[in-house]
Amino acid sequence: MIPQTTLAKIRSIFGSAGFLDSAEDRIAYSYDGTPLLTHLPDAIVIPQSVDQISRLLKLANDEGFGVVPRGSGSGLSGGSIPVENSVVLLTNHWDRIIEIDQNNLSAWVQPGVITAKLHSAVEALGLFYPPDPGSAAICTIGGNVAENAGGLRGLKYGVTKNYVLGMEVVLPNGEVIVTGGKSVKDVAGYSLKDFLIGSEGTLGIITRVLLRLIPKPQFSRTMLAFYSKLSDSAETVSDIIASKITPAALEFLDNTTIRSVEEYAHLGLPTSIDSLLLIEVDGRSAEVEEDAAKIVDICKRHGALEIRIAANEQEATKLRMARKAAFSALARVRPTTILEDATVPRSEVAPMLERINRIASNHNLMFGNFGHAGDGNLHPTCLTDERDANEIHRAELAFGEIFSEAVRLGGTITGEHGVGLAKLKFLEKALGEPAIDMMRKIKEAVDPNGVLNPGKIFSLRPRCEGPLPTNREQIKKFADSGAFT
Amino acid sequence: MIPQTTLAKIRSIFGSAGFLDSAEDRIAYSYDGTPLLTHLPDAIVIPQSVDQISRLLKLANDEGFGVVPRGSGSGLSGGSIPVENSVVLLTNHWDRIIEIDQNNLSAWVQPGVITAKLHSAVEALGLFYPPDPGSAAICTIGGNVAENAGGLRGLKYGVTKNYVLGMEVVLPNGEVIVTGGKSVKDVAGYSLKDFLIGSEGTLGIITRVLLRLIPKPQFSRTMLAFYSKLSDSAETVSDIIASKITPAALEFLDNTTIRSVEEYAHLGLPTSIDSLLLIEVDGRSAEVEEDAAKIVDICKRHGALEIRIAANEQEATKLRMARKAAFSALARVRPTTILEDATVPRSEVAPMLERINRIASNHNLMFGNFGHAGDGNLHPTCLTDERDANEIHRAELAFGEIFSEAVRLGGTITGEHGVGLAKLKFLEKALGEPAIDMMRKIKEAVDPNGVLNPGKIFSLRPRCEGPLPTNREQIKKFADSGAFT
Repeated sequence: MIPQTTLAKIRSIFGSAGFLDSAEDRIAYSYDGTPLLTHLPDAIVIPQSVDQISRLLKLANDEGFGVVPRGSGSGLSGGSIPVENSVVLLTNHWDRIIEIDQNNLSAWVQPGVITAKLHSAVEALGLFYPPDPGSAAICTIGGNVAENAGGLRGLKYGVTKNYVLGMEVVLPNGEVIVTGGKSVKDVAGYSLKDFLIGSEGTLGIITRVLLRLIPKPQFSRTMLAFYSKLSDSAETVSDIIASKITPAALEFLDNTTIRSVEEYAHLGLPTSIDSLLLIEVDGRSAEVEEDAAKIVDICKRHGALEIRIAANEQEATKLRMARKAAFSALARVRPTTILEDATVPRSEVAPMLERINRIASNHNLMFGNFGHAGDGNLHPTCLTDERDANEIHRAELAFGEIFSEAVRLGGTITGEHGVGLAKLKFLEKALGEPAIDMMRKIKEAVDPNGVLNPGKIFSLRPRCEGPLPTNREQIKKFADSGAFT
Repeated sequence: MIPQTTLAKIRSIFGSAGFLDSAEDRIAYSYDGTPLLTHLPDAIVIPQSVDQISRLLKLANDEGFGVVPRGSGSGLSGGSIPVENSVVLLTNHWDRIIEIDQNNLSAWVQPGVITAKLHSAVEALGLFYPPDPGSAAICTIGGNVAENAGGLRGLKYGVTKNYVLGMEVVLPNGEVIVTGGKSVKDVAGYSLKDFLIGSEGTLGIITRVLLRLIPKPQFSRTMLAFYSKLSDSAETVSDIIASKITPAALEFLDNTTIRSVEEYAHLGLPTSIDSLLLIEVDGRSAEVEEDAAKIVDICKRHGALEIRIAANEQEATKLRMARKAAFSALARVRPTTILEDATVPRSEVAPMLERINRIASNHNLMFGNFGHAGDGNLHPTCLTDERDANEIHRAELAFGEIFSEAVRLGGTITGEHGVGLAKLKFLEKALGEPAIDMMRKIKEAVDPNGVLNPGKIFSLRPRCEGPLPTNREQIKKFADSGAFT
């Protein structure tokens, strides 16, 4: 626990309105979108200025506590879960789009802006912010940058990193820097911005982000293709790429996921098929129609049972729903849903899916698989029950094997969710000691007292290491203790 | 000087064929593409294996000398110029394209591959590697990655960073890592690859690079537009962007540059005009023709005196020559050519050019200006004579003012050339102490003995600081001393 004298100093920085430590508030911020992991923060702070964050971090260095930044808390790797002796710092109330600069195709935004709101705001001006994580309706830009969020448009448009021009950041020592700017080209010194994107809140707290925008594609065409064999859909994907077409989305669902989606959303999907592809092309209308026609041919050539093409935006939204509902639909099947993001080179998608299915079967587990076939970013999803310790143990073993297979196939343990707490124990194996050693050295140089999001990505060296979060037992004991008033 | 005993150990790593220390060789590697800066290396090494580089770096840490990696030596910021007690490590002989993977749209290449050769190789397969630095015909991919090279296609396609998927790197301690991979999405730990891109050889030696490729645009249209007023060409640029068109190239030349190009290349350019724009659009033919027509309208609306549109690829090559010959043409005007890359947000190009002209005139200097109008990356080029110490001094003052103006307008001191030695003294002013401090901490954590490309980007703290390179006087004395045999 952070000593009361220290908590009083923290409260004096943020004022009573910006400092929460009731039992209810602490429980509310003890978890995020990640299953199984929870830990109570000692307090929650709501900054009203960058200066307050600076002062908090200086105090954290002086008195030895951790600061865990948090946007919407929709992360899937435990990145915003508190650890022992830590306060949660909220940024989701900073939700203003500060400026959209149409001359320089850029936007300054506060970190708490919801990704989908930014989409709407810039699209209304004929502009486009491509990154679209699955959680776009609830997640924040600050969280997207901290995790280098991906999404459905990765293949054609890239990920969050490709759209960050600059940012204002409070460093672990409390200093504030602005790194990057509206110049598309900038090679003045190390690119601190690129050090910070995807650093999961461990190197700095993002207080403003400058994003790159592009002209909005004028037209798009959306279709679903159904297959009786997974390998046929995989060959379709390869052939589309070989034809030099780059779809805006190229997504797949397996049978378990299709059945769950149909039960949940009643979209009229055939539930007996082995897999489906959601394919979207965008750009100028002539080009889009040409590509769409070629794709239909390719789908047919690879044995597609049926192809549904949206005639208008309303129908497109409905087809997209087949993919967008996947997580929610799977989450209804059993009490606990462990959604992972093992990622492989595109050419290895089919072999990887076969291995996932074999591993699931070996461990007697139920898996649904869906994901971004076009960029190899898969979402093997284990449908389980956290109250069944044995099943959870088997799930952990299975994911360990899945991550090993992904690495063996030239892929990675996480394509877009981050390492956080959830994949910490797999990281070293995936990257090897020299790479981890370099990361640790950088973390220790920038944050020698380990005040920023401690214990995330990689466990620190012994001198800095704090205990890892416990499980829900801690919350239960806390609730049972009568701390609620 | 590195002691003879140490040099003998270095020679024993590389063998006689891989170790050069004759006076001729040392002079040949004492300079790069940057004017005014030279320094003699103590030796030059030519590795035949990654292991030799590891052993060299371990020895450098043990015995305290610097290692300066070098590709083609075409850099313009002094990044490959030796410093005291250093050996130059060549990579330009490692010039093999290892693999082009058409399924995963990627290529593994050795660092010494010439950028233009990669262009040809992938384009023959219908693929495209967009980064095209002005020196593409001679520069290496390793150098491009180390400097995060830009080029003409930055506005539409981005820079080198956007096309690096992974790399094999020897770290300063001699450890070898492979970071990144063929997965487009990868957020496993800090992105070491992004730490290393643009780190100017100060954090690692690149021994293999995995590049991202895209489908080759099917069609392009190239045109030149001539203007009697610079402001008209600037407004044309703004209006093209406002029309949601993203040209593949949007380049400008001022009158001094146009006259020099015409004298040099005899392209039939009108030498009385104030500026010209080179505009290129690419993509599908229908889209390209539509955009080209819109652009012609915009050019006319802003008072273009004449618009020349290439009817075929041969004519396009000729029009492009107006821009591509700029540096060579200006370099003929006076003995010493200082080409810089002050960069501003696109909206500030016209004000920036006015200021450059005023500064040049205040210091009684001759400047030619050209550059990437579309992304704000300008090339103010001072035409001078290094034998005139007073004029060189005035040039230094002028560039100091130009960089300050660029920063004041929200830009940067270097858009694509890097800091190296040439802009070291401007960097701190541009970025501020907290940012520089973070960069230094990272450098010191990763390379505590400062063995990799010492003294580049920022001067190290006193304990590590080595003397900066001297000027050509040193070479002259060396040559006069009779060391030549």
